[in-house]
Amino acid sequence: MTTVREIRLKSRPRGVPTADNFELASVDLPPPGEGEVQVKNLWMTVDPYMRGRMNDVKSYAPPFALGKVMDGGAIGEVVASNSPALKVGDLVQSGFGWREGFTTGADKVQKLDPRGLPPQAFLGAAGMPGLTAYAGLLRIAALKDGDVVFVSGAAGAVGSMVAQIAKAKGHTVIGSAGGAQKAAFLKEIGVDHVIDYKAEKDLSAALAAAAPDGIDVYFDNVGGEHLEAALNSARLFARFAICGMISMYNAVEPPPGPRNLAQLIGKNIRMEGFIVSHHFDMMPKYVEDLSGWVKAGKVTWKETVVEGIEKAPDAFIGLFSGENLGKMLVKLA
Amino acid sequence: MTTVREIRLKSRPRGVPTADNFELASVDLPPPGEGEVQVKNLWMTVDPYMRGRMNDVKSYAPPFALGKVMDGGAIGEVVASNSPALKVGDLVQSGFGWREGFTTGADKVQKLDPRGLPPQAFLGAAGMPGLTAYAGLLRIAALKDGDVVFVSGAAGAVGSMVAQIAKAKGHTVIGSAGGAQKAAFLKEIGVDHVIDYKAEKDLSAALAAAAPDGIDVYFDNVGGEHLEAALNSARLFARFAICGMISMYNAVEPPPGPRNLAQLIGKNIRMEGFIVSHHFDMMPKYVEDLSGWVKAGKVTWKETVVEGIEKAPDAFIGLFSGENLGKMLVKLA
Repeated sequence: MTTVREIRLKSRPRGVPTADNFELASVDLPPPGEGEVQVKNLWMTVDPYMRGRMNDVKSYAPPFALGKVMDGGAIGEVVASNSPALKVGDLVQSGFGWREGFTTGADKVQKLDPRGLPPQAFLGAAGMPGLTAYAGLLRIAALKDGDVVFVSGAAGAVGSMVAQIAKAKGHTVIGSAGGAQKAAFLKEIGVDHVIDYKAEKDLSAALAAAAPDGIDVYFDNVGGEHLEAALNSARLFARFAICGMISMYNAVEPPPGPRNLAQLIGKNIRMEGFIVSHHFDMMPKYVEDLSGWVKAGKVTWKETVVEGIEKAPDAFIGLFSGENLGKMLVKLA
Repeated sequence: MTTVREIRLKSRPRGVPTADNFELASVDLPPPGEGEVQVKNLWMTVDPYMRGRMNDVKSYAPPFALGKVMDGGAIGEVVASNSPALKVGDLVQSGFGWREGFTTGADKVQKLDPRGLPPQAFLGAAGMPGLTAYAGLLRIAALKDGDVVFVSGAAGAVGSMVAQIAKAKGHTVIGSAGGAQKAAFLKEIGVDHVIDYKAEKDLSAALAAAAPDGIDVYFDNVGGEHLEAALNSARLFARFAICGMISMYNAVEPPPGPRNLAQLIGKNIRMEGFIVSHHFDMMPKYVEDLSGWVKAGKVTWKETVVEGIEKAPDAFIGLFSGENLGKMLVKLA
């Protein structure tokens, strides 16, 4: 019998989550039954979308249950196998995050071939966040030659991939992020015009200065004032991929939307929300493209790593104060 | 020499336009020179989009100039011709509205073949408002079998065509309009669920009751609270054609946008603004379809007619208090 620790949802947050909303607990794992494996998690991810799952409302992902272990993406290693499909030492990807290990059917996890990348990359640049950037830019925003691209949250897991994919494809990119360290990172990865929104009084003016001829594509990770600025700077037939609105996730009373939505009409703007799970068909092509960009030195990424399952709540909470540069990860072993 | 009256922009409105913003003036028309015609206007249109042109801001249509005659769609009759292209008695369509007559090059007007329809229909159901409904539903919202359609401003020139085109194509239609008379008209033209928004405290609740399984298409003529309700009731992959936001046109300080825009993400909603002038290629197909629907008794329309150029400002101002049922027109002769 193996004992592992896990994080449970203790109470539902009102506003920004606090440590009190989480509970660390220990559970004993049964040995794998017929067709099952036991997995030791090496890495787990914390992502902004999980905030929505802490509320008791129906959304695209079901709410976390009170008193139960939370879940999310994880990379682990098979430590015991009772299935011909997986052997001890195999790396696997699963949805059994927020815990140090688990026993489950071999068909409930996916064997991972890291193809020379560090395994945790499959929770970030080579995983859902990377595909989110790729699908949002190429399919939702229908990126085309000559487009000027604006991305908010540009130093984050998704945003930094958006910026680099757009640069790799030859576009002018304006990226916004909060703070000097993130701004420096954006310059490092080749963003043409960096907006440190924490240093700007008037985001619309800052964007207009960075993109005097306007923008064609906006990749929104933030919402609120960023969306308002993007509408002001949008050119005719601009396309907005609405991926996240982190500025609103913790609002007790949702803040009002942009005052300038009527610009959608005169500028013929298309604004489209999306969830990456509807675009998994693009994964093989994405991994192929990504591999080429990485080899050519055009795409890189940062990780902010927190160690230990007991720190997972802090890592998650830190997302909302912008503590992460690139992908926020929790190292479990 | 013929003397005609015209309406000039005297001052730019702040908020809802008033009679003071307009000025009635008389001008003498020169006889037509070589290649020119003189036209007596029979009908002119007033449309909500003209409110934007009264502001001194760049938009998709240029601002009206202070002290100059305004312009817009008109139907007239040639009363003198010095061009082989047009003869006396020909009906013509032009952009020389807001005046009783004009002299211009024959190439600056379009000869109108009314095809059995009353000529003023080409300022409404068979003209730009009708094509706006058609292009918005079919191209922008990509209407497909089984879609449940919600349209705001459903008793207006555009909205009533949206409702009827959707009904003619077999869809369930929810229409909102203000007041009992408009609600009765919507029932008359076959709208399945009529919302009199002036009688509703909670528009989101009213829409949820009318469309318990949600909506797939929203055709927005109003913005504001209507857009918020549509987001709340939207189903996965809903498409919003954003045609107008009349609730905001007169705002001195633009009101905040909907608080629930983040629903775009989880529901994968596409929201697209459009201007009909980018869709004139659909006109021949529209007129063909419209003619079939009219013959089959599936599409009809209402007009609110005001007589005399001196009443044109009142007709225009009346659009914003919802005085029109169907197309608001000014009869000039």
